[in-house]
Amino acid sequence: MKRGRFITLEGGEGVGKSTNLQFIRQLLVQKQLSVILTREPGGTELAEKIRRLLLEQHNESVTPEAELLLMFAARSQHIHHVILPALAQGQWVLSDRFTDATYAYQGGGRQMDQAIIAWLENTVQGEMRPDLTLLLDAPVETGLLRARQRGNLDRFESERRDFFERVRQAYLARARQEPRRYAIIDASLPLADVQEQIGRALEAITS
Amino acid sequence: MKRGRFITLEGGEGVGKSTNLQFIRQLLVQKQLSVILTREPGGTELAEKIRRLLLEQHNESVTPEAELLLMFAARSQHIHHVILPALAQGQWVLSDRFTDATYAYQGGGRQMDQAIIAWLENTVQGEMRPDLTLLLDAPVETGLLRARQRGNLDRFESERRDFFERVRQAYLARARQEPRRYAIIDASLPLADVQEQIGRALEAITS
Repeated sequence: MKRGRFITLEGGEGVGKSTNLQFIRQLLVQKQLSVILTREPGGTELAEKIRRLLLEQHNESVTPEAELLLMFAARSQHIHHVILPALAQGQWVLSDRFTDATYAYQGGGRQMDQAIIAWLENTVQGEMRPDLTLLLDAPVETGLLRARQRGNLDRFESERRDFFERVRQAYLARARQEPRRYAIIDASLPLADVQEQIGRALEAITS
Repeated sequence: MKRGRFITLEGGEGVGKSTNLQFIRQLLVQKQLSVILTREPGGTELAEKIRRLLLEQHNESVTPEAELLLMFAARSQHIHHVILPALAQGQWVLSDRFTDATYAYQGGGRQMDQAIIAWLENTVQGEMRPDLTLLLDAPVETGLLRARQRGNLDRFESERRDFFERVRQAYLARARQEPRRYAIIDASLPLADVQEQIGRALEAITS
């Protein structure tokens, strides 16, 4: 059986990930591909419990190290129980965020040493990397406005503007470092234009 | 103010940790020391939530990497919110298990690479190590019999005999590597003899 491909969707707050995740799935289904939709942090029962610990507010501050290790603990469960088994069965896996988000949020946002993240990535993932990463990019203001209109903010959404500016720049820096894996989508354009860009990015990998 | 000291109590299942933890606390209190009792994994609200994830049974297997990262995530919270602040205030901290347990259970028991554990130890703890570690050592059979009499087994207690044999050997190997920090207590002797050994080990650090 032909191995499936692993596609990740990345981007900051309010860039339209949910809407476009469904759009990408439909595009893949139209091409007769079997697709599973998943997300990080999360994707398994235990990883979703870890997700809750990561997103909820606590009476104590969460150390940057604890946050980072919880992310990779959830990721290890997700990889071994969901992503790798699906790919081996020929399914395509579409994940709402993956390790690039860790580089952006914990590396860029929290300013943790990238070497620490890279060590954990290698230890937890081995050689495993996404085949294609779509980065929905928009100015921070645009995204924050949308995210805040949704109401209750989680522990990350409550961060300050400069945090999200660092997240955006970290994403863009990674995309520039790995232009073959990454497609940068201008998410500030009208939805039809955003989806046209997504369609073009998917052509290369599905044809 | 004089900085407190950090004492850890280690050992496999059923070696008498709970009983002797109270005994150690009393000895320290008798010496007019201010003592806090804590435990790993756990010690803070968030770390106790992580503890629950570590000990309960799940519908999915827990990868050795996820288990290890959850341990160190809890440890980071414990160190920054409980242990270091207490030591800085001159309190003595007595912890039911600490990083040596990770070397014994995840390193010995699960046979994870010790270099991975050492990297995490350095990243999460920096230079921070216990001042004294008391290892309650007893043959595996003795301990398991006691632990199983207590009833409901958690995810670790349900492991097989050879797992606990590796845990014991890993503990002993560490104690031999760091004889100045470690005191090996023969926990197979009658309680009075065990506590006499503990008293002698504490003399050095409290006098």
